[in-house]
Amino acid sequence: MYAITIPEPGGPEALVWAEVPDPVPGEGEVLVEVVASAVNRADLLQRQGFYNPPPGASALPGLECSGRIAALGPGVVGWSVGDEVCALLAGGGYAEKAVVPVGQLLPVPDGIDLVTAAGLPEVASTVWANVFMSAGAASGAASGVLGAGLRPGETLLVHGGASGIGTMAIQLAKAVGARVVVTAGSPEKLARCAELGADVLVNYREQDFVEEVRAATGGAGADVVLDVVGAKYLERNVQALAVNGRLVVIGLQGGVKGELNLGALLAKRASVTATSLRGRPSAEKAAIVAAVREHVWPLLASGRVRAVVDRVVPLRDAGEGHRALEAGENVGKVLLAV
Amino acid sequence: MYAITIPEPGGPEALVWAEVPDPVPGEGEVLVEVVASAVNRADLLQRQGFYNPPPGASALPGLECSGRIAALGPGVVGWSVGDEVCALLAGGGYAEKAVVPVGQLLPVPDGIDLVTAAGLPEVASTVWANVFMSAGAASGAASGVLGAGLRPGETLLVHGGASGIGTMAIQLAKAVGARVVVTAGSPEKLARCAELGADVLVNYREQDFVEEVRAATGGAGADVVLDVVGAKYLERNVQALAVNGRLVVIGLQGGVKGELNLGALLAKRASVTATSLRGRPSAEKAAIVAAVREHVWPLLASGRVRAVVDRVVPLRDAGEGHRALEAGENVGKVLLAV
Repeated sequence: MYAITIPEPGGPEALVWAEVPDPVPGEGEVLVEVVASAVNRADLLQRQGFYNPPPGASALPGLECSGRIAALGPGVVGWSVGDEVCALLAGGGYAEKAVVPVGQLLPVPDGIDLVTAAGLPEVASTVWANVFMSAGAASGAASGVLGAGLRPGETLLVHGGASGIGTMAIQLAKAVGARVVVTAGSPEKLARCAELGADVLVNYREQDFVEEVRAATGGAGADVVLDVVGAKYLERNVQALAVNGRLVVIGLQGGVKGELNLGALLAKRASVTATSLRGRPSAEKAAIVAAVREHVWPLLASGRVRAVVDRVVPLRDAGEGHRALEAGENVGKVLLAV
Repeated sequence: MYAITIPEPGGPEALVWAEVPDPVPGEGEVLVEVVASAVNRADLLQRQGFYNPPPGASALPGLECSGRIAALGPGVVGWSVGDEVCALLAGGGYAEKAVVPVGQLLPVPDGIDLVTAAGLPEVASTVWANVFMSAGAASGAASGVLGAGLRPGETLLVHGGASGIGTMAIQLAKAVGARVVVTAGSPEKLARCAELGADVLVNYREQDFVEEVRAATGGAGADVVLDVVGAKYLERNVQALAVNGRLVVIGLQGGVKGELNLGALLAKRASVTATSLRGRPSAEKAAIVAAVREHVWPLLASGRVRAVVDRVVPLRDAGEGHRALEAGENVGKVLLAV
């Protein structure tokens, strides 16, 4: 098969379409003939050599895909060759074929086309696991799953509201009856966030999000903050938290080490969690995917939550997709079609 | 009545035994004739003027007490005048009489004498809420209760293992089948921790707790860290955490602001929570106290968990108790008997 490879780390031009061996499904895995994949920010880091795949994962980039099941590995039940699916991957999505553990397979939601479905597993799983699941909520296998447990009536602050993660977080939070404050870097992006339901729009180039969150909550602050900036926002994110607030850091675009005011955190009885999806063991991923199928998929099928697609580029031109994300041009997902 | 007052913040001598008005129980409260109270580290801060009582709380120090119910406020059911009780307080325990919301009352555990019982509510509630309860575990009223949810087979690192909190944390963690690493500043204190069941003893004056935790866990780290040091230990506590680890900061004896390595936290999918008991709303306190009565009280009654008392000093000499805590002399609780 052909796939996007990274012979040497570098800029978008480091992504090279090349022939590689077909992957072979093992016990409890299926082979998917890929129709589309999608660009995630972690792919940019992997391309630059900063984010090695977890042990056992494909060396190829690509954390999600959609397509049709082409073969079943030993012990697979409940899925058939020809099924249209999408999947959360530990890697290997930028390829004509991908191997997927069955726990990470999802059906294509009703009413969503197969290409669009490629951009759903990562954002849905990331947002659901980190904003909605609580510690202990995923019993058994996923004992380590922590999350912020956003509840109806609470306020969520989402940084990067126009990103793939942001557009999903806005809609899911509104669907459960929460209030949503978003930050973004342009009026156009904020307008798109408003269309998706965001209640309070903060242009981070012109406004202080701490002040805006406080103003929007009568001084109380945000119950949950979903952050992709990291160190640069740590102090202000803690300032923006409400009593019992939960800051969930899932990206470090603004650096790794920051000052934490434990006194402020203690006075609020608040928490800071930093987490990612990719490195979790497959049992945790399966628990998250099952929860996504139960809670998010019906919202997509009913049209209550929309898949927000910025553009679709050919997979062999994946570098174009990376350039768009790096330039911050996108609203929603950049998809890669085989 | 007489009580310990703080006319001016200062050293232990700032505590003055003086006549003050009797408190009056309101709706849902009882009046307790106090037999004993106990010294908590927060009392030292309050005495120095660094920790104001939360709104509505007594201005007098004292976060717990034991005694006999002397009067019932309106609407109290399930308790009678003369009942021997102990209680978690927002303040006012250093006094001959104290008012207690019924949700914060506990019976005296079977086999525990009334003076000793005074030192149980704070440590049992603090440890149970912060180490054993999970987000969402206390459903309903206590929706904001976060905790580390220590599970059987996991490893707990307790700093200050010989403190009141430490001696309770060691025993409760062992009772649920966890492994316990403790730090303390002398061989004598560590020996006492070992008697209580601690598996791994770290003299923080001579050893690096990060190295010792790693050595004791095959490199994995601690699943839960219960910390009273704060900023000074923040970086090393994060280093000592396992994947899915939870750092719970309940004291700031080593400073307020520290550097947080979000990259290290993210790689471990770990969390930092900072919290206290005193400022929580009464519904949360009631949920915690109910859980303590259900889970901890039977362990005390059966002798599986022991109340560790360092010394009993007269309440009017409360300054002596403060001096002992400030000097780090104590193993377990310093009680104040009326």
